[in-house]
Amino acid sequence: MSARRLEAFSDGVIAIIITIAVLELRPPAGTDLAALWHALHSIFFSYVLSFVYLGIYWNNHHHMLHVTTRVTGGILWANLHLLFWLSLFPFANGWMGGSHFAPVPTATYGLVLLLAAIAYFVLQRRIVASQGPGSVLARAVGRDLKGKSSPVVYAIAIPLALVAPFAALALYTLVAAIWLIPDRRIERMLLAGDEADEAAARGEQQEEARR
Amino acid sequence: MSARRLEAFSDGVIAIIITIAVLELRPPAGTDLAALWHALHSIFFSYVLSFVYLGIYWNNHHHMLHVTTRVTGGILWANLHLLFWLSLFPFANGWMGGSHFAPVPTATYGLVLLLAAIAYFVLQRRIVASQGPGSVLARAVGRDLKGKSSPVVYAIAIPLALVAPFAALALYTLVAAIWLIPDRRIERMLLAGDEADEAAARGEQQEEARR
Amino acid sequence: MSARRLEAFSDGVIAIIITIAVLELRPPAGTDLAALWHALHSIFFSYVLSFVYLGIYWNNHHHMLHVTTRVTGGILWANLHLLFWLSLFPFANGWMGGSHFAPVPTATYGLVLLLAAIAYFVLQRRIVASQGPGSVLARAVGRDLKGKSSPVVYAIAIPLALVAPFAALALYTLVAAIWLIPDRRIERMLLAGDEADEAAARGEQQEEARR
Amino acid sequence: MSARRLEAFSDGVIAIIITIAVLELRPPAGTDLAALWHALHSIFFSYVLSFVYLGIYWNNHHHMLHVTTRVTGGILWANLHLLFWLSLFPFANGWMGGSHFAPVPTATYGLVLLLAAIAYFVLQRRIVASQGPGSVLARAVGRDLKGKSSPVVYAIAIPLALVAPFAALALYTLVAAIWLIPDRRIERMLLAGDEADEAAARGEQQEEARR
Repeated sequence: MSARRLEAFSDGVIAIIITIAVLELRPPAGTDLAALWHALHSIFFSYVLSFVYLGIYWNNHHHMLHVTTRVTGGILWANLHLLFWLSLFPFANGWMGGSHFAPVPTATYGLVLLLAAIAYFVLQRRIVASQGPGSVLARAVGRDLKGKSSPVVYAIAIPLALVAPFAALALYTLVAAIWLIPDRRIERMLLAGDEADEAAARGEQQEEARR
Repeated sequence: MSARRLEAFSDGVIAIIITIAVLELRPPAGTDLAALWHALHSIFFSYVLSFVYLGIYWNNHHHMLHVTTRVTGGILWANLHLLFWLSLFPFANGWMGGSHFAPVPTATYGLVLLLAAIAYFVLQRRIVASQGPGSVLARAVGRDLKGKSSPVVYAIAIPLALVAPFAALALYTLVAAIWLIPDRRIERMLLAGDEADEAAARGEQQEEARR
Repeated sequence: MSARRLEAFSDGVIAIIITIAVLELRPPAGTDLAALWHALHSIFFSYVLSFVYLGIYWNNHHHMLHVTTRVTGGILWANLHLLFWLSLFPFANGWMGGSHFAPVPTATYGLVLLLAAIAYFVLQRRIVASQGPGSVLARAVGRDLKGKSSPVVYAIAIPLALVAPFAALALYTLVAAIWLIPDRRIERMLLAGDEADEAAARGEQQEEARR
Repeated sequence: MSARRLEAFSDGVIAIIITIAVLELRPPAGTDLAALWHALHSIFFSYVLSFVYLGIYWNNHHHMLHVTTRVTGGILWANLHLLFWLSLFPFANGWMGGSHFAPVPTATYGLVLLLAAIAYFVLQRRIVASQGPGSVLARAVGRDLKGKSSPVVYAIAIPLALVAPFAALALYTLVAAIWLIPDRRIERMLLAGDEADEAAARGEQQEEARR
């Protein structure tokens, strides 16, 4: 129950962040294609990247909370901490795109990516800890190669952005692409775990009914 | 369950898009009727059109997800892809209305309509594929004349907008009107299918209970 | 089920409208009390009035949908029609408050109130028609004195605003106050009806179970 | 049921307020670190403080409504009253941060904190009254030292802000910190109460089933 509300609240915040980011796409000043190109060419790409990242976060967050049964105060605040960094996407996105990928704004975008990734990692640790090492989530997360390597890539990309912003942008895009490629193995494990959990839950309910 | 969350998230995003579009209606600079007319005459019509389109998308999306039982990763991303194009409505709407239906902005609006329609079509195909050819949705969609003809009309309207923006606008309005007219036949089939589904679901639950 | 989703979607839209209206309260240019007073004195009152109206609409809408069991296409569009006029509150509110209650903006605000009230009336008629004359809602609505008199007051206030905007404002405030005063009689009837409905629903379920 | 909807609506409004507050972080005019520092140094801290406060309100509000079973008209309006003051956070936050903690804006922020705290207190009283003195909530709230001392601190901080805004800011931060520190005692009581309530609810259902 409480995990459902946490999920609903987080979904709401992410839905709003994803939509508010579009406000950075200001209608062009002119009315021809040149004006459209001038107004959009970098902010549009920046918006697409942010949309994909927020979509990935929503998707992963959703899967993680789906197998969460107990919400502690620590999980609640770790979740708000993640939402805080996600809420900076429209700002970072607007500055990076609006400056046509200038060095400092591109590095700042990477910093927001890094801090959101760390916040996600902390939240995941908190949830795994509360669910126990034998839980579905603990098994699904496993060695968590993607989750551990992403911050490393961001940490490399941030200083790189100061000298070669487009190389940093390529790295941000690469990480998004890695996350986008469906990880069938995890999906299958979650699915299997889900069924096991439901079976266990049914078992518990039957036991309760017997008492 | 998962289809319910996808629906809730999509509803949230569409609700925000529909409301954010109203931010393009800026309070007029003056305080008389002339100022109101100057500020609103085209952006208001543009807003009404976008509101109706988003309402139609919400309505159809809702019906489609209502009969969806299984959500795969592919469906999830096809859905985010649709939401991406819908999220560009406030931008396209603001530019078209703000420029008093200039050729390029009106064509851009049509392009967003076209890409959203294609995204919807892709999502529908994905869901039908996952539900199977004998599913309620597959039967309800049928030959999908509206869904297939709308993109064709948009594709005609986009180049037309460059020479006669009001003719293109008339076509956009026509497509919205066609979707607005309730398709009693589909509604009845969905309703019948719903009941059949529920009966089937009840049957399955009873079988499960017996095991 | 469907009525629940309609309610959730409407709640979402109203929640966003209510919050977006606050964006019209721009931080003052200066940093002293005079700047605060200059920036806020009329827009703040205007915001409070809009907040109360949206709260009333949310409250009534919620009660109405709570006793709605069947959602038709007509209800769905009547509901979107209501949301459309409600979505114009931030605009009307911003113009009226921003112009310090100038005649035309104050009349425009009244027009939005009037059109929202008519849209609510149409929605209510649609729902009552679909629920049948003996339904809880039909009995609760009864002669609907408030619902019928409010548009009349708005219709008087709109032309009045053009000559005496503060008199019109007083009428808008009066109508809000009338709606705010809790109508114990209706609440009790709804409550009683609710229980009757639930009893009836339980009866139907039992009958279904017997078949 | 009704308490669930009130919770969902409030969650939606708080989610939007929390996200709209980020719109006050405007992309800097320049593209270097100095521009970032100039644009953000005070508004960023102001945003963090508001985010934490809104998180605390969401958290507490959520716990309070979780043990609420009956929603009266009075509770509904007390809740809207709270949401009203919370909705002023983006405004107060934008003015305080944008003015680099000038005296009057910092006092205004404190006033919004004070009025929100009072509104929360009123809502809590209303809910406790409707749930009865022996309810879980009544016991959990207890003497409510935090809830009663916070407004006192704000009332001291507001005049202080006019002469020493940073001292007032320190007090606002202190109150947030006090609320952030988890109150294990209350959490445990709520948890225990929850189980007792559920047991009671199960008992009632069984009794109902017997009749």
